[in-house]
Amino acid sequence: MFDNIKEKVYEANIQLYKQGLVPLTWGNVSARVEDYIIIKPSGVEYEKMSPQDMVVLDLAGKVIDGKLKPSSDTKTHLEIYHSCSQIYSVCHTHSKYATSYAQAGIPIKAMGTTHADYFFGDIPCTRALTYDEVESDYELNTGKVIAETFKDKDWLQIPAVLVKQHGPFTWGGSADKGGLDAVENAVVLEEIAQINYQTMLINPAAVLLPDYVLNKHYYRKHGAGAYYGQKK
Amino acid sequence: MFDNIKEKVYEANIQLYKQGLVPLTWGNVSARVEDYIIIKPSGVEYEKMSPQDMVVLDLAGKVIDGKLKPSSDTKTHLEIYHSCSQIYSVCHTHSKYATSYAQAGIPIKAMGTTHADYFFGDIPCTRALTYDEVESDYELNTGKVIAETFKDKDWLQIPAVLVKQHGPFTWGGSADKGGLDAVENAVVLEEIAQINYQTMLINPAAVLLPDYVLNKHYYRKHGAGAYYGQKK
Amino acid sequence: MFDNIKEKVYEANIQLYKQGLVPLTWGNVSARVEDYIIIKPSGVEYEKMSPQDMVVLDLAGKVIDGKLKPSSDTKTHLEIYHSCSQIYSVCHTHSKYATSYAQAGIPIKAMGTTHADYFFGDIPCTRALTYDEVESDYELNTGKVIAETFKDKDWLQIPAVLVKQHGPFTWGGSADKGGLDAVENAVVLEEIAQINYQTMLINPAAVLLPDYVLNKHYYRKHGAGAYYGQKK
Amino acid sequence: MFDNIKEKVYEANIQLYKQGLVPLTWGNVSARVEDYIIIKPSGVEYEKMSPQDMVVLDLAGKVIDGKLKPSSDTKTHLEIYHSCSQIYSVCHTHSKYATSYAQAGIPIKAMGTTHADYFFGDIPCTRALTYDEVESDYELNTGKVIAETFKDKDWLQIPAVLVKQHGPFTWGGSADKGGLDAVENAVVLEEIAQINYQTMLINPAAVLLPDYVLNKHYYRKHGAGAYYGQKK
Repeated sequence: MFDNIKEKVYEANIQLYKQGLVPLTWGNVSARVEDYIIIKPSGVEYEKMSPQDMVVLDLAGKVIDGKLKPSSDTKTHLEIYHSCSQIYSVCHTHSKYATSYAQAGIPIKAMGTTHADYFFGDIPCTRALTYDEVESDYELNTGKVIAETFKDKDWLQIPAVLVKQHGPFTWGGSADKGGLDAVENAVVLEEIAQINYQTMLINPAAVLLPDYVLNKHYYRKHGAGAYYGQKK
Repeated sequence: MFDNIKEKVYEANIQLYKQGLVPLTWGNVSARVEDYIIIKPSGVEYEKMSPQDMVVLDLAGKVIDGKLKPSSDTKTHLEIYHSCSQIYSVCHTHSKYATSYAQAGIPIKAMGTTHADYFFGDIPCTRALTYDEVESDYELNTGKVIAETFKDKDWLQIPAVLVKQHGPFTWGGSADKGGLDAVENAVVLEEIAQINYQTMLINPAAVLLPDYVLNKHYYRKHGAGAYYGQKK
Repeated sequence: MFDNIKEKVYEANIQLYKQGLVPLTWGNVSARVEDYIIIKPSGVEYEKMSPQDMVVLDLAGKVIDGKLKPSSDTKTHLEIYHSCSQIYSVCHTHSKYATSYAQAGIPIKAMGTTHADYFFGDIPCTRALTYDEVESDYELNTGKVIAETFKDKDWLQIPAVLVKQHGPFTWGGSADKGGLDAVENAVVLEEIAQINYQTMLINPAAVLLPDYVLNKHYYRKHGAGAYYGQKK
Repeated sequence: MFDNIKEKVYEANIQLYKQGLVPLTWGNVSARVEDYIIIKPSGVEYEKMSPQDMVVLDLAGKVIDGKLKPSSDTKTHLEIYHSCSQIYSVCHTHSKYATSYAQAGIPIKAMGTTHADYFFGDIPCTRALTYDEVESDYELNTGKVIAETFKDKDWLQIPAVLVKQHGPFTWGGSADKGGLDAVENAVVLEEIAQINYQTMLINPAAVLLPDYVLNKHYYRKHGAGAYYGQKK
């Protein structure tokens, strides 16, 4: 079932490790196909994992295909898919600079064009989960606190969030990339997190990117007037 | 003797170098089997080392098998095994961020879920050894000061320590991994050391992880109620 | 057309990725031959790119040869070539330390001989572009603000600039290297950016390199009296 | 002439690049044999260099064998050999953390056992060269200012120096390693520079290593009572 997509989702998960975003078995990527999601199994070493180990679930979270348990973060992924029907991939890492901002509880401000090329505004940081939220259904509530953070934001224009004291989640809107667009956003998020960190240490008074540059760079790559890249 | 375990301990030592935790000949991993330990020889280059170079000692420190001298840190390893009978592997590195905390004399506080997934509380830093402790039996006393630091702690729930102005030791409780679990803990320790360092520079007022999140993440992966990973 | 140069420009672009200056499809290198420039196509993955994908334009910006769209930064490259006829290559990256200085809006001061070996003075940072400059012809005006920054400087003696809140551009004066000299300057720029960053954190009162050492090191490698390297 | 040593010196120079201490053609290693030194040629790319490119000079600096010009830093190497007859190898890099301390004009203090394993005390930073010293015979005077810094120090117990606003030189006393011991010291110097940098940012009040630990660790690896490593 969905063998072609399993292959892609497998490859997207492998990229987490190859791009240096995670060590060991950390991180997970999922992709949505129709009313199903395909996700990495929980706690399997990247070197021992194969495409057939990917797990297929319906959007209610029921395993439809696969011998292994899905990622322990599956409910968070599902809640993100439920919150925005245009999302087709979700990625979670503990990449070091983005996670540092999450631990610091501080958003990643738009301070340069590297940021503006991918994210149309600051990367927000969620509030902390309450005791009850952690105790009752932790992974689901992690998804809900992300959704709460995005209730007045456009998910696809800012495809990343920092979960406070935890780490980043990113997502993407391409139905045919098997999760690779969410991974690409995770790569860029880590890049801009490191650059902002260094910017702040060089000049604590460094100013934000003006809106007109944010607009220019974002729309150079996105939307009807985009002129970056080749015609599809 | 113990050829199978020598192979594993060899591989665990090689991982120190491959994972970037140490340059040159630095670092050492041992594993316990029954009443013996198998440990890396002292000062042998990783590229020239073979599984048969691993040294077997009894728990009193007598070499039982092997042509080479064991690691100069052997007595520290032995003292850790003596202090907690559930420990089956010990690893010592000078990984850069963990060693920086050791030199700073400051524990690595639990500030995020990355930490909580592996360590149930702060990673403590020992006191400095006294002149007499250094002069009389340095490596043994390094083990004793680690044991002193853990006299009211659970070794297996916090499988790492910073020896002041020296560097980290980690350990593990798996009898069948030939030291790889201690190495995994060393990888994660370095990861959280770097993340905490960056967190502190981003926001010196960043707060500790609430106990209920520490509990949730730790017990998601450890103990009877764990649901991370696949069934064994 | 210019197949030999396309091969070189391709290789120079590939070096951006291999040297760790950029992830994904970021960055671009061009080279000038007679009254033409050869430049990377826009938004093509490094692993899928071939020498034949390089795009040839005349100096007015008209595509002369190539099936793909040229880099979206092409007008900035052209404006640099127009501003200094001795320039034969241009390179743009978002390398992490140089971009951090660009975001901080702070020049990279000459603080050591590593800097003086390649750059005869501080690496300047441009002013920010105005709203009108961004809206009217962004990439062209990026070139113009670079030219404005160099109106009293020698382009070839300081072959690098930081575009404020954007990132670095570098260039070179060798007609036969197909862009590799601009890439080499980008590698060194990133190196000195990181070293200056660390210098500043170690000692905020660290002093600038005296002019007589700047002179010595720069002219050891450049100009008629150079004695570094082999005779050409 | 000295083909065997040329091979070793070549390999030692290649290690500079492989260990990440230098990019491009930077850095140089020499070794002494009897009254000759073998050194890297000036400005040759590592990938194009071969053992036969190594240059042989007598201790007065006259080229005895080799078609290429020796490293532009040759006179500095020679002055170090002249200053201490027990030195058999010299290495110069612009490694990033050590160079940052050189630019900051601040010695690398002994703050941990990683330092004490290789260096019996602080790594000193030279004074700046005067205008006359730079103008008259720069590379020779760089050697002389290093010698001045070591006039009351033991070269072999502290085999490294920071040349102010320039970078590190290291050396070694092994007649048979073809420069590899000086490279090893350069690797360790960079390691302790980074660890000290991070220590200082974690805790600006971190204290120096007590002398009795410095003694213990240094003499565990050096001198008649050493017990680290295998018997020679």
